[in-house]
Amino acid sequence: MSSVIELCERAAQTAPEVARLSGEVKDSALHAMAEALQDETAALVEANRADVEAARHAGTSATILDRLTLTDKRLASMADGLRSVAAQPDPVGEVVEGWKRPNGLSIEKVRVPLGVIAVIYEARPNVTADVAGLCLKSGNACILRGSSTALASNKAIVEVLTTAATSQGVPAAAIQLIGDADRASAVALMQAKGLVDLLVPRGGRALIQSIEENATVPFIIDGDGNCHVYVDRSADPSMATEIVVNAKTQRPSVCNAAETLLVHEDLADGWLPAALDALAALGVEVLGDDRVRKAWPAAGEATEEDWATEYLDLKIAVRVVDSLDEAIAHVNRWGTSNAEAIVTEDHRAARRFAAEVDSGSIFVNASTRFSDGSEFGYGAEIGISTQKLHARGPMGLRELTATKYVVWGDGQTRL
Amino acid sequence: MSSVIELCERAAQTAPEVARLSGEVKDSALHAMAEALQDETAALVEANRADVEAARHAGTSATILDRLTLTDKRLASMADGLRSVAAQPDPVGEVVEGWKRPNGLSIEKVRVPLGVIAVIYEARPNVTADVAGLCLKSGNACILRGSSTALASNKAIVEVLTTAATSQGVPAAAIQLIGDADRASAVALMQAKGLVDLLVPRGGRALIQSIEENATVPFIIDGDGNCHVYVDRSADPSMATEIVVNAKTQRPSVCNAAETLLVHEDLADGWLPAALDALAALGVEVLGDDRVRKAWPAAGEATEEDWATEYLDLKIAVRVVDSLDEAIAHVNRWGTSNAEAIVTEDHRAARRFAAEVDSGSIFVNASTRFSDGSEFGYGAEIGISTQKLHARGPMGLRELTATKYVVWGDGQTRL
Repeated sequence: MSSVIELCERAAQTAPEVARLSGEVKDSALHAMAEALQDETAALVEANRADVEAARHAGTSATILDRLTLTDKRLASMADGLRSVAAQPDPVGEVVEGWKRPNGLSIEKVRVPLGVIAVIYEARPNVTADVAGLCLKSGNACILRGSSTALASNKAIVEVLTTAATSQGVPAAAIQLIGDADRASAVALMQAKGLVDLLVPRGGRALIQSIEENATVPFIIDGDGNCHVYVDRSADPSMATEIVVNAKTQRPSVCNAAETLLVHEDLADGWLPAALDALAALGVEVLGDDRVRKAWPAAGEATEEDWATEYLDLKIAVRVVDSLDEAIAHVNRWGTSNAEAIVTEDHRAARRFAAEVDSGSIFVNASTRFSDGSEFGYGAEIGISTQKLHARGPMGLRELTATKYVVWGDGQTRL
Repeated sequence: MSSVIELCERAAQTAPEVARLSGEVKDSALHAMAEALQDETAALVEANRADVEAARHAGTSATILDRLTLTDKRLASMADGLRSVAAQPDPVGEVVEGWKRPNGLSIEKVRVPLGVIAVIYEARPNVTADVAGLCLKSGNACILRGSSTALASNKAIVEVLTTAATSQGVPAAAIQLIGDADRASAVALMQAKGLVDLLVPRGGRALIQSIEENATVPFIIDGDGNCHVYVDRSADPSMATEIVVNAKTQRPSVCNAAETLLVHEDLADGWLPAALDALAALGVEVLGDDRVRKAWPAAGEATEEDWATEYLDLKIAVRVVDSLDEAIAHVNRWGTSNAEAIVTEDHRAARRFAAEVDSGSIFVNASTRFSDGSEFGYGAEIGISTQKLHARGPMGLRELTATKYVVWGDGQTRL
């Protein structure tokens, strides 16, 4: 088995060839990869069964077992993801902007692949196909470091994808899986300086911390999602309830689910108790400040720790605020820059919340659950950036590229 | 005197206010700052004299003394820089792109300030005004950490700029200079995590290495410039000579000066000796490979070290290559991703060089010396990025911003 560094060197050598692939070749490869996933469904489900059995014996939680399991339907959805990546415009070669200087130089800012992209991720085999598809379409070689729990599944998927991709002219080293899913392989990847152009860690706090301590390669943090919904005084009451319920309960285990509800004091007596009844009816545990508990006595007591916590569960922290300003200040103090929503009919409040809240995505009258590459129309997503440099919010194909300037002249020299 | 962390905290507190300044306020402040630099020319030249005298006594080189010295003309040029930054469109609030989803959500990607930008730079007092102007216009608070050699000059400049800026409604902490220009203050700045959103180090290898070892804040490397000019077989001979001479000799001490000349073998006997005569006549020392020395025996011997060296001096490494492919491979092997030029009349060669050379800026029939924010039309520059993430090549106002998504809905929830 090759060492991580050997894999990275192979990826770096192959990257220029991947960068030069035409859009036609990339799209036909993506369609072939989608076909292959469906043709090989039985074999892939079989390979996955070994991972699922081992995880079940190891006492893995039902949630993780569910994410790990491949079914016909999930493989079809992975294939659809690849097709929808193929349907995106090719980002490579896009002229982002261009202008002419007084001396006649024509300056173009052109989108180019980054080179080698590495992704460390959890036991979700569907991510293997998403990442491979996005990296190929954006002209990058990719190195996949999945979880040991999903190793048999990932190996089978990568073999199917690579066979399909190479049949269309994609070099074999464009998609590589690290065979050792241990800690050492993750650290080796974090330190493959000069070989890896971007590392995207998809995982919990332990992984982020390890990246911050060990990484010498460039990386983008896909961090926590302590997301907020603020219901303004002017909110449409039923829209507010629907958005809060959706943001909290539609899929509580993901990073774009709401964790804190902020409510304008004018709604504390009327709208709030009804909304909390609706949440409680769906099994949501409510923790509130004094004003919340006065309006809805069944609420537990929220402390500062609750404002800071990403529950990822059917649990919500609720606070009554005096004003839009207080709501904005709360979000900027406690948020993690993932996704925040305001529900309001007041144009000025909407504009101020959008401008002043410091976060990757601001939703006006929509659920935070839309902070997602697919929902943004990116076909799939490589992650959600919670940092400011390079990319922020859901990352699609363009976030996997860099730019370079191409300047066309007729012999210009500098005076 | 405040500690570096206190300065950073003040900047972080002020940043939202700077971010909200209108374009009108920022532009009137920039014009007031420009006026003030000119009104206070005598006092600034006087303050600078102390720095220059101290540096002279310390035996500082003539080149550095020259960069350090402020004159009426240089102050006028700093003022012009501020006016030309004012003339740029306001990047804050620019909708970079926007689209509508099938469910009716309108997604906008909006440009926003980064927050707090810190710059560590050498003994060039003009950088103080450039950075202050660019950061203000892009809605960021800035922290300046100049060289101890220029401390008196920088203090005087920042006082003049701040007085002018605050008179127009800019908060005083928008522009702050670190009063201790020692190593500890630089390291404190590198580690002000959570307070500094972007650190731009402008300096030599020692600074870059210190950043790579110490920095916990996000940074962008303004690195070396081992720039290449490739003269293709189809080049116009006189254009080729003009570009090579300009790229090497017009200002040899800067990062976008050419360091290596690559020449197609078809030109080794005719064009090359004449071009090297022209360089030698301007005092340029030539080091070449065997084929160069055969064609022009006065050349010294170039080794691999020369391909890797940024001379920043009247010295050039020259190599004869068999083909465009060999030229591209040489640049990609030895270049530092700053600026590379090709001289050619061959459309296909130009397109291949532009596409396949991996560098921040590629010039076709123009001098590498144009890799510069002002020459690109950015008014001034904060540096030249030699990395791929976030920004690459000359950095102007937009490179000092992040984006966020603002999503406008009518009550959309996720299914």
